Parts: sequence; structure tokens; C-alpha cells
Amino acid sequence: MERNIITVDIAIAKLLEEKKYKTLRDILGTMNAFDIAVIFEDMHDSKLPLLFRMLPKELAADVFVEMDEDTQEFLIKGFSDNELKEIIDELSADDAVDIIEEMPANVVKRILRQADPETRKEINELLKYPDDSAGSMMTTEFVSLRPDMTVEEAIKRIRRTGVDKETIYTCYVVGKDSKLIGITTIKALLLAEEDDIIENLMETNVISVGTLDDQELVAQTISNYDFLAVPVVDTEGRLVGIVTVDDAVDVLVEETTEDIQKMAAIATTDKPYTKVGVFETIWHRVPWLLLLMISSTFTGIIIAGYEEKLAGALILTAFIPMLMGTGGNAGSQSSVTIIRSLSLDEIEFKDIFWVIFKECRVSILCGLILGIVNFGKILLVDGWLLHNEEINIWIALVVSITLVITVVVAKIIGCSLPMIAKTMKLDPAVMASPFITTIVDVVSLLVYFGIASLILNI
Amino acid sequence: MERNIITVDIAIAKLLEEKKYKTLRDILGTMNAFDIAVIFEDMHDSKLPLLFRMLPKELAADVFVEMDEDTQEFLIKGFSDNELKEIIDELSADDAVDIIEEMPANVVKRILRQADPETRKEINELLKYPDDSAGSMMTTEFVSLRPDMTVEEAIKRIRRTGVDKETIYTCYVVGKDSKLIGITTIKALLLAEEDDIIENLMETNVISVGTLDDQELVAQTISNYDFLAVPVVDTEGRLVGIVTVDDAVDVLVEETTEDIQKMAAIATTDKPYTKVGVFETIWHRVPWLLLLMISSTFTGIIIAGYEEKLAGALILTAFIPMLMGTGGNAGSQSSVTIIRSLSLDEIEFKDIFWVIFKECRVSILCGLILGIVNFGKILLVDGWLLHNEEINIWIALVVSITLVITVVVAKIIGCSLPMIAKTMKLDPAVMASPFITTIVDVVSLLVYFGIASLILNI
Repeated sequence: MERNIITVDIAIAKLLEEKKYKTLRDILGTMNAFDIAVIFEDMHDSKLPLLFRMLPKELAADVFVEMDEDTQEFLIKGFSDNELKEIIDELSADDAVDIIEEMPANVVKRILRQADPETRKEINELLKYPDDSAGSMMTTEFVSLRPDMTVEEAIKRIRRTGVDKETIYTCYVVGKDSKLIGITTIKALLLAEEDDIIENLMETNVISVGTLDDQELVAQTISNYDFLAVPVVDTEGRLVGIVTVDDAVDVLVEETTEDIQKMAAIATTDKPYTKVGVFETIWHRVPWLLLLMISSTFTGIIIAGYEEKLAGALILTAFIPMLMGTGGNAGSQSSVTIIRSLSLDEIEFKDIFWVIFKECRVSILCGLILGIVNFGKILLVDGWLLHNEEINIWIALVVSITLVITVVVAKIIGCSLPMIAKTMKLDPAVMASPFITTIVDVVSLLVYFGIASLILNI
Repeated sequence: MERNIITVDIAIAKLLEEKKYKTLRDILGTMNAFDIAVIFEDMHDSKLPLLFRMLPKELAADVFVEMDEDTQEFLIKGFSDNELKEIIDELSADDAVDIIEEMPANVVKRILRQADPETRKEINELLKYPDDSAGSMMTTEFVSLRPDMTVEEAIKRIRRTGVDKETIYTCYVVGKDSKLIGITTIKALLLAEEDDIIENLMETNVISVGTLDDQELVAQTISNYDFLAVPVVDTEGRLVGIVTVDDAVDVLVEETTEDIQKMAAIATTDKPYTKVGVFETIWHRVPWLLLLMISSTFTGIIIAGYEEKLAGALILTAFIPMLMGTGGNAGSQSSVTIIRSLSLDEIEFKDIFWVIFKECRVSILCGLILGIVNFGKILLVDGWLLHNEEINIWIALVVSITLVITVVVAKIIGCSLPMIAKTMKLDPAVMASPFITTIVDVVSLLVYFGIASLILNI
């Protein structure tokens, strides 16, 4: 993304140094908010307030929204009350709420004190909704039309009020009780005759979300139906806001990043990697590593318990990493696939038996293929090629049978745990690979030593 | 997403059975293309052609686009030439290309034969671009304006031609040589005076993508700048098409799914889990499992090589799973974080030393914390609580020192391999956990036995 930004970056720093503020202001004025935010974030903190003050008011608000929370907090702390007020007034209420939710309490108080009464009321209204709900991500700045308006009246209304709206492309038709009764688009209005009545143009089969619906559901709705915006209604069916596609995209990216972090046993954060300090990174990672390290005490106990038997066939230890590795990989193939399918709403809990049945068939065939290859590999490579005299057909058999069982167990646990987690209102993603690996490790070791006792008579 | 669809599903099946085709047609006519596609896909194949024929022409095309490729192929095979022609003519060229790219050659031929000459030319034009490029995902149906038009003329033009356009909300201003010179929006046009000149309203600092740019870059551009559409230009700067936000969302979801699949060592597919058969699933999973299984031969060889030494301190084997598990987890925490950051364009190759330096500091501190806890845990839990007499302070020391080194090595390999892969034009995601785990396993075993030899004198 930063294709052409690098050089602009250097130019801006140079102009700033040479105090060519007029040129600087002109250049910034032609640029895009996102690009400016990227450049400003990389600037030294001391230059930031000066640069920021050069932006025209409206652009300044857009740039502010695109910045990360640390830079936002730094800037707010440097603003005079008047400057803060100007920015807040330019922000749309949903953007203001997004920012407020990340700020410490004293900064929030200052922001709310500076906002004009109407904005403050709107922000407070949105702050009531739980974090990550449709209510907290919606904007109240939408175009509403009455069903008895003509197209000409509607377009006039949009011309008069449209400038402050988040989107004017989808228009919402509401009845007298504020109930959402239909939607129409600017495209439909422009293509219709001027004296057509809105009621006859609107789509009445409206898909909407509730204020308390999870933001992931909202994003999925917009993505599935290819919407530019989705209306948010309260429990009475009254239109209270809309969520636009750009916010939905952010949620999709954010939720996926969080899923990926959970799958890799990292505490979730929506900060980019470059903005998370060393100690914060450690804090995100160490607890999970500790938990998983301590849970592997079980495997240690099992091995220690079978130590005497192992002493009789020490070569068995050489295959433990392979068995555990393959079990872990087989399990995470299933768990990760299921977690992604769950979050894309491709499957739900009622499909669990179908899923288990499918994974059973997959895992038995996978296991057999791996087992047969492994049997041959042990005899040919480890035994014959590497001249290991401890290797014989019975050792190969023990390892290969264990491998088949491990793969089957791993895949069944891997597919069912995330689905069970979801029904228990837990996050399926935290059930991913590392946890499943620990369980599979224990099971495969017990199977390994059990089968070894039987076949090798140790 | 399937909240209210289930019951409609049953109703449709019932109406079909009772042959109430008129009611059925009315119900389908009010529904959304995505919902109809979901329901139709779950219907028995024998009912599908009949149901599909009940849809009004335009809706039928929209539903067709939303269906998965197997259902599309099944339907096409059942269509008469005339039916096929009707659907193709209703499709936008970019949707037609998406479908054609997934179809077998004989079906493609039939589609191209039925398309009217102009559509066929457009499809062939788009098919020239590589799969996954901006060119192959763009549509050529956009609104173009001339710079010297007045707002009134522009709106008239949009009214006349807008019905066939993919979006009318962003309008593209092109010069006489087809060069893209600016963009404007319907919003700007509606809020301007009727006799304003387009040239004075348009934004000239246009962000565009090239026809050969990767689809991921296109999607990131739309997502970063909160665009509804991005213009696609050829090497001469001529406007050849646009990509709209709904297609960008699909790409973001698809690319993330593929990244997640690669991280879990599964062959990538954009088919939903429910649509992939048992044998296909096995085919996606077995090659990687085999590769990783065989690569763990190295760990086996190392353990077998140290067998004699191990016989002298057999308790050391009990900690191998913990060391490998923690190494694997520590490595995948880093690799997964870096892979995600790379695909969100937060970091690039030039940051590699900064990243390695950060991961060094993180891993040394992480390693020390884990090492200290582990040292205490071995003495307290394994030694004292579980009365294992083989455990002593020197064993605990060997294991803990190895643990620290393993975590550091794992994190440094975990962060650098994906970045190196990216520079070598390989996919960073395939370098994820399983590969890194194999390398880390080998290193940690060598370190383990090396330190054990030194400290325990075995």
C-alpha cells in the first residue's frame, strides 16, 4: 500500500524543516486521509501537532479517524479545548464513539465536555450499546424519506440534508411511528420519473439487523448481500441507525485477525504489530505459553510412568516427536477448517454429527495412507538405509498402528471441540490447535505405550 | 445468517410439492438473491431446474451468481441454449468471467457461443488478464463523464445510461484519449449547482490500480481508503474498468481463508467446507501430513543417535514433548503474527531487522520467564510432589536452559522465515507453523542433548 507514499514522506519532512508551510499545506490538502495518517504516524512526535494543525478542518477530522489510538491520544493531549471541539464537531458520531471507546477516562471526559450538546447526546446514546454490537458501530446520520413523497421532493430533501449524511446512496423510508417500512436507492430515484411516489419505488422486503446484534453478524450480512449499508432497528422495528460497508470491512478484517491470533494462542489485539511494544507483546504471548507448557506435564508424567518399559525398547522414543507432530498437524487441519467455517456461517451446531461423520471417513483414510507410508518408511529408511538394528517389523507395526489411531482421534477431537465450544457460547477459535494438541498428545502416548506393551510384550 | 431462511425453506419445498407455482413465483420474486441461492443449493437436484425457471429473468441471473460452482455447472448442463443465453445476457461481464474461470472447457465453449457478440468480446477481453489480477475482477460497466460537462448534463447522462452500470455512485472523468483525469460522486453532483462544470467538482488526485495488480492489493486499497469502487487503468493511464467494494469484500474473505488454510497446512480452496467431498478433503490434507511426517525423520535420527546417552538419563525423554510443544507454540505465535502483518501491509521486507530485533527482545524475556517457571515446576511438581527420584537440580537446569534457547530460536525463525519467503516471491503463509515447527524441533533436540552432555556428563 505504501507504494508512492515513501517519497512524499521525505518531501513533507523536508518542507517542514525548511518551514515552507504554505507549500506543505497545499500538498496535504490534495492528499487522501489514509495516506496522511500513515505518514504522520511515522513522523517524530514533536513534529506531529504542528503538521496536524496545517490540515483543513474537515480533512483533519478524517485523518484523525484513520490514526491509531496511541497517536490519537497523544494529539488530544496536545490540543487546546478549542481545537478538540473543532475535531469532535467534524467527526461523525460513530467514529467519535470508536475513538472514545479506546481512550482513558480523563480523555473521554474532556472529549464529551468539548462536544456540542447535540453531538454529546448522540455519542452518549451510542455509548449505551455494548461494545462490538450493531448499536455501537452504527451511525445515526442517514437519509430518511416518507412513503408519500414524490421523487422530486425526495431528491430535493437529499440535496438539502445530504451533506452531513454518512451515505446518501441508500435511502430509508420510515412511517409515522419511525418504523422502517422500505428502502430505496439514489440510483432508483434518478432512474424514475420526477412525479413517481416513493412508496411505489421502495423495496419493502428489507433486511435489517438489531441494535444488540454482534458486529460480526452485521459485517456478514453486508458482505453476503453485497450491501452498501444495512439498517439497524430497535426491538420495536424503529429505524435507529445504519452501518455502512466501510465499517463492515474493518470489522471483517479485525475479527479475522483476532481469530488468527486465537488460533496461534496469542491474546487478541486490534493494534498493528508495529504499534505493540515489547512488554505488551510478551504480555500477549507468555500466559498462553505458560499454560500450554504446564499442561504438557501430563505427557511428561505418562512417559516417566512408562520409563521402565521404554528402557526395554528405547528406539520407541525416537518416534514420539513424529507421532505427536503428525497428531498435532492432523488435529489443527480439522479444527482450523471448522473454526473458519463456523465464522463464515457455513456450518452450525446442528451439523455436528454430519461433520463428525465426514471427519471420521476423512481421518480413517488419511490415517491409513499415513500409516502405510510410515510402515514402509521405517523399514526402508530407518531400518535398511540407516542400518538401525533395533528396527524390526514389530516396531514399525506399533508405530504405524499408533499413527492411524492418533490421526483419527486428532481429527475427531479437532472438529468437535470448536463446535461444542460455540454451543457453550465460548469462542471456538481459542479451542484451536494448541489445546487440541495437548489432548491429542496425551491420547497418542497412552495408545503408543498400550500397543507397544501388547505387541512387543514389554 | 440462516436465521429466517430455514422456515422459508420448508415453505418453498411444500409449495413445490403441492404444485402451487403461482404462489411460489410470488414469494421468490420478493426474496433476495443470496437467500434464494442458499435455499436452492440445499434443494434436491431434481427440483432445482424447475425452481430456477420460476425466477424472473433478472433475479435469476443474480441468484445464479451467488451459487457455488457445482450448482452452476449442474444448472448450465440442464439449460436449453436459449435459457443459457438469457442468463448470460443478464450477467455483468466480470461476474460471467468469474463463473467461466471455474467451468470445464466444454461448458465455457457453450457459454461463449450463447453470449451476444458484444458480451462475448467483453468476456474475452477480461479473460486475457491473469486470474486473481485487477483486470480479471473489474467490470467495464462504469459511468464516465467528460470534464467540460455541466452537472445538469452529467445527471442527464447518468439517468440515460445508469441502469446498466455496476455502480453510478462514483463517476469517472476521462479526457479525449481515454485517460482518467478525475473522479466525482453522485453526492457531489447532487449537492452542486446545475450549471457547475464537472472539471471544477472533480477530485484530481485519483488513487487507481493497474490491470495486472494482484487482487489482494486491489481489495486492500478499497478497504484502506473506504472506497465504494477503485478505477483500474492500463499502463498508459487509460481507464479500462472499475472494481467495486462488494467484490473487494469477497476477495478479502477468500484471501484470508486461504491464508488460514496455508497456516494449518491444508491445500487452499475457496469452496465451503460443506461442499468439499471426502476424497477431495483427503487430497487437500494428506500431502502436507505426509511431507511433515517424513520431515520428522530428522528428529527421529537425532534421538536414535543419542540413544546410548539417553539410556544413562532416561528421565530426559519425559521432557521432549514439552520442549517441542513450547518451541512449536512460541514459533507459531511469531510466524502467524508476522504473516498477518505482511498480508495487512503493516510491515514489509525492509523492516526485517527491526522485526528480528523486536522478536529477540520479546523471545529472551519470554524464554527467561518460561525457563524460571519451568525450573520451579520440575523441582516442585515432578520432583517433590510426584516423588520422581530421578529428578534433581541438574536435570531441571538442563531442561530449563534448553527451553530458553528453544523459545529464542523458535521466535527468530518464526519471524524471519515468512519475511524471507515473501522477498523470494513465495507465499509467507506456507512457511507457517508446521514447517517452522520441524526446524525448531531439530534445533531444540540438538541443543537439549548438547547441554545434557555438558552438564550431566553423560
